[in-house]
Amino acid sequence: MRKEFAVIGLGRFGGSICKELVDQGVEVMAIDISEEKVGNFANIASHAVVADTTDEQVLRELGLRNFDHVIVAIGDDIQSSILTTLMLKEIGVGYITVKAQNDYHEKVLRKIGADQVVHPERDMGRRIAHKILSNNVLDYLELSDEHSIVELVAGDTLNGNTIIDLDVRARFGINIVAIKRGRDINVSPQATDPIQKGDILIVIGADSDINRFEKNLMDEK
Amino acid sequence: MRKEFAVIGLGRFGGSICKELVDQGVEVMAIDISEEKVGNFANIASHAVVADTTDEQVLRELGLRNFDHVIVAIGDDIQSSILTTLMLKEIGVGYITVKAQNDYHEKVLRKIGADQVVHPERDMGRRIAHKILSNNVLDYLELSDEHSIVELVAGDTLNGNTIIDLDVRARFGINIVAIKRGRDINVSPQATDPIQKGDILIVIGADSDINRFEKNLMDEK
Ligand SMILES: Nc1ncnc2c1ncn2[C@@H]1O[C@H](COP(=O)(O)OP(=O)(O)OP(=O)(O)O)[C@@H](O)[C@H]1O
Ligand SMILES: Nc1ncnc2c1ncn2[C@@H]1O[C@H](COP(=O)(O)OP(=O)(O)OP(=O)(O)O)[C@@H](O)[C@H]1O
Ligand SMILES: [Ca+2]
Ligand SMILES: [Ca+2]
Ligand SMILES: [Ca+2]
Ligand SMILES: [Ca+2]
Repeated sequence: MRKEFAVIGLGRFGGSICKELVDQGVEVMAIDISEEKVGNFANIASHAVVADTTDEQVLRELGLRNFDHVIVAIGDDIQSSILTTLMLKEIGVGYITVKAQNDYHEKVLRKIGADQVVHPERDMGRRIAHKILSNNVLDYLELSDEHSIVELVAGDTLNGNTIIDLDVRARFGINIVAIKRGRDINVSPQATDPIQKGDILIVIGADSDINRFEKNLMDEK
Repeated sequence: MRKEFAVIGLGRFGGSICKELVDQGVEVMAIDISEEKVGNFANIASHAVVADTTDEQVLRELGLRNFDHVIVAIGDDIQSSILTTLMLKEIGVGYITVKAQNDYHEKVLRKIGADQVVHPERDMGRRIAHKILSNNVLDYLELSDEHSIVELVAGDTLNGNTIIDLDVRARFGINIVAIKRGRDINVSPQATDPIQKGDILIVIGADSDINRFEKNLMDEK
């Protein structure tokens, strides 16, 4: 069965969710109190509607009770965010994701039944701080408090070495799970494949081991 | 040599960067025009300063010219963001990361010499949309337009199977690079290790192959 999505609040965060969902081929109803914001989504979303979602009657008229997943991305107006969430829950929406501005906001949202609460600015701040601190890390996925998958750029030190030469598993306890070279990506790298300067190594392991690997084998920037 | 960091603009995004950098043990100067915001960071940052960073004299007095990396996280006031960036560049800051509100803002920032421009709300919107669409995906790392590493929750269908039983490499062209079970994580899973319901599989491969794997072997939610 086709799922029905709605995004309420078309700021940068809600707008981006709406665009990406549409890009992936799903139908999305885009809702905002601002006519201008809604105008920007008229050609993007399946339906773009000007509405104040703190009005229960409005929510019913939009048929939101039948939606499987509604994302509330109202930002600064915390009261409207809470009221909207409360009423979406009341009319019986299947799953509600809400953007929170702070921990108190999250607490209230959980209490009234939000299924998922997200902190986009906070989470992205953390991600960016991580990247800033590790010179050679392009991107990463946190697997646990102590394990990650990270993308590292190979420099002069690694140039010409094979995975066997480096013996990273034995020396550092980490694995190289993929190698990117330009637009090519090798997700089953062979131990005898030579690494070139500029290659992006995708490595998995304990953070401390990855750090040791970085310190020992990556060029300083 | 120790690096010197400063964060200008202590909203949710800038505040989160500041906190995370401090958590990781680096010294950070936290700057905002709002006394209240700065007050919140007095016990967090190494130095917390009330200042309007659109004033070149102020930037010089703060000694920012000697900083290695300054993050400009001024949001809605695009003019202040641009002016601040311009003057940081002029006084010779090593590396400048700036939060952009939209594509035009980014264009100007690049022109005046910002080294890194970030769109936290937009990027997090994309990430959340991805997670919303893939029922079983907990988190993911995009390796390229067509390849990813994703975290998938094993359900009933996989329960009791080993990696050999599943033969995912031959059948789907993907690799299972790690398995999480509760707080344990196995970054070198053996082909004969049995998977349990609730395990989190970290798989790498082409998006289309991962999708096929999901469709065939993951439970519908
Ligand atoms: N009662 C309401 N009904 C519908 N939409 C609303 C309501 N109140 C606010 N909005 C809309 O929510 C959107 C997001 O709010 P706002 O811009 O304050 O959030 P923000 O956190 O600064 O956004 P972002 O950081 O994602 O750009 C705005 O476009 C606003 O018009
Ligand atoms: N000229 C300036 N000098 C120093 N700080 C400033 C200046 N102008 C704005 N700021 C600060 O920048 C911070 C971030 O700005 P704002 O809250 O508009 O951004 P935002 O994008 O909504 O934030 P976020 O989404 O990260 O919460 C605010 O705390 C504000 O006081
Ligand atoms: Ca459509
Ligand atoms: Ca300190
Ligand atoms: Ca705002
Ligand atoms: Ca914001």
